[in-house]
Amino acid sequence: MRIAVVGLGLIGASLGLAAREHLGAHVCGWDSDPEAVPAALALGAIDSGAGPLAGAVATADAVFLAAPVGALPELAATVLAQAAPGSVISDVGSTKRSLCEAVSDPRFVGGHPLAGAESRGSAGARGDMFTGATWYLTPGPATAPATLATVRALVEGLGARPLTIDPALHDRLMASVSHLPHVFANVLVNGLPATDSELAVGPSFRDGTRVAGANSELWSDIFLDNRVALDAAIAEAISELTEVRSLLQRGDRDGLRRFSDRAAAARARISR
Amino acid sequence: MRIAVVGLGLIGASLGLAAREHLGAHVCGWDSDPEAVPAALALGAIDSGAGPLAGAVATADAVFLAAPVGALPELAATVLAQAAPGSVISDVGSTKRSLCEAVSDPRFVGGHPLAGAESRGSAGARGDMFTGATWYLTPGPATAPATLATVRALVEGLGARPLTIDPALHDRLMASVSHLPHVFANVLVNGLPATDSELAVGPSFRDGTRVAGANSELWSDIFLDNRVALDAAIAEAISELTEVRSLLQRGDRDGLRRFSDRAAAARARISR
Repeated sequence: MRIAVVGLGLIGASLGLAAREHLGAHVCGWDSDPEAVPAALALGAIDSGAGPLAGAVATADAVFLAAPVGALPELAATVLAQAAPGSVISDVGSTKRSLCEAVSDPRFVGGHPLAGAESRGSAGARGDMFTGATWYLTPGPATAPATLATVRALVEGLGARPLTIDPALHDRLMASVSHLPHVFANVLVNGLPATDSELAVGPSFRDGTRVAGANSELWSDIFLDNRVALDAAIAEAISELTEVRSLLQRGDRDGLRRFSDRAAAARARISR
Repeated sequence: MRIAVVGLGLIGASLGLAAREHLGAHVCGWDSDPEAVPAALALGAIDSGAGPLAGAVATADAVFLAAPVGALPELAATVLAQAAPGSVISDVGSTKRSLCEAVSDPRFVGGHPLAGAESRGSAGARGDMFTGATWYLTPGPATAPATLATVRALVEGLGARPLTIDPALHDRLMASVSHLPHVFANVLVNGLPATDSELAVGPSFRDGTRVAGANSELWSDIFLDNRVALDAAIAEAISELTEVRSLLQRGDRDGLRRFSDRAAAARARISR
């Protein structure tokens, strides 16, 4: 089994580690940054990495694209032109609708593992990054059933739980559970009072802002690619925040209690 | 050294455990709920707990009030009327301005440890709850310097880092670093799409909403007591969220990048 990983950042390098450890695959890596290849080799994330993109891709049974979402449509087209007829191609991007609309090929299925960290680059890569994680797969009308089955088996082999979902529904979900939380984390830290001294914050602030300011280049891409769903999610949030302001101004204790009680009930649905 | 803890919930019971373990104090507990006393005794959080409030307080060298913030002004007045002349009285409430305006006594200094958990009740109490935590102290004009010095030494003995601050500034800070994060956590989970199936969420959502729906009675009290500062913090957040919407609608990649970069710089000030 030969796997090509295109893009050797945090997720790409972790995918390489996991594919070597859990699937016993030969992993060939490629990155637009020439320094990323020796770093990934040193980590043991890839077996080989020299040469042009076409070489890495042409002999692979499976290709995973792990580049920023803004680069994925063009990269997918390039890779599909070079990949073998019997191979499968997937990606690990945080948004799916625009990519899955742009790519129409039986060998391609979109993918998105719910994994990561606030660090960037391959240094934080871990072979168990995907263990137990949900890994969304978003087949389009052109995706061959055999492609979906193969990628699903690979994802399971990497230790993740594959979950098939419509690309547009995926993006609306992500606006709520990932992109809006990132926006909120940024807003929370940007609202910190200006002081010269160290700011003492409690555990809820630390946890709620862990992802604040994470990799601004990558995230501005994600925000923009999912702008319609994210804009709607922010609008909904503003509307609820406005209602909270009015509860505060009216001194409405019961209303504030109901606001928290609804949250407790909603959170119970996602706790594990 | 005899310490009275009035209110035996999560923080009160942890305070009792810490005072017995770290200060070797005799801890006398009281709670308006009669079932809380045997539970705290069983936990080892208090040495004794029978009898009326006056009995617990009259013989104590130090009294800590660990009741919900809405109950504190009246409770403080009751306790100060019963406490000995040479004793000190403090509290652990999450808001300070209204209490410190209501209480004018040389024996009293307001306090607030930045510690806690999303659980409630004494069952989650831990003797190391305050180890290394910031513990705000908010002396008012009436607070005797000796009271502040005594409570400061007790707080250090419990393992925390005392930090003296103006009560109103404390409440503005808390609006930003604690109360707004709680509101955001509630808004995030309340915005989850309605689905029948299990919702797959990533680590950033799980961390960002850990406190969602926490103890609605206690938090509606806190929100209301700090309503002016919290309302201002929400208004500021709405204004930044509105700006993010406009960046998304304009497709302004550089603006979104600056939004994240500002957050990265702000977060660097609080990371440890």
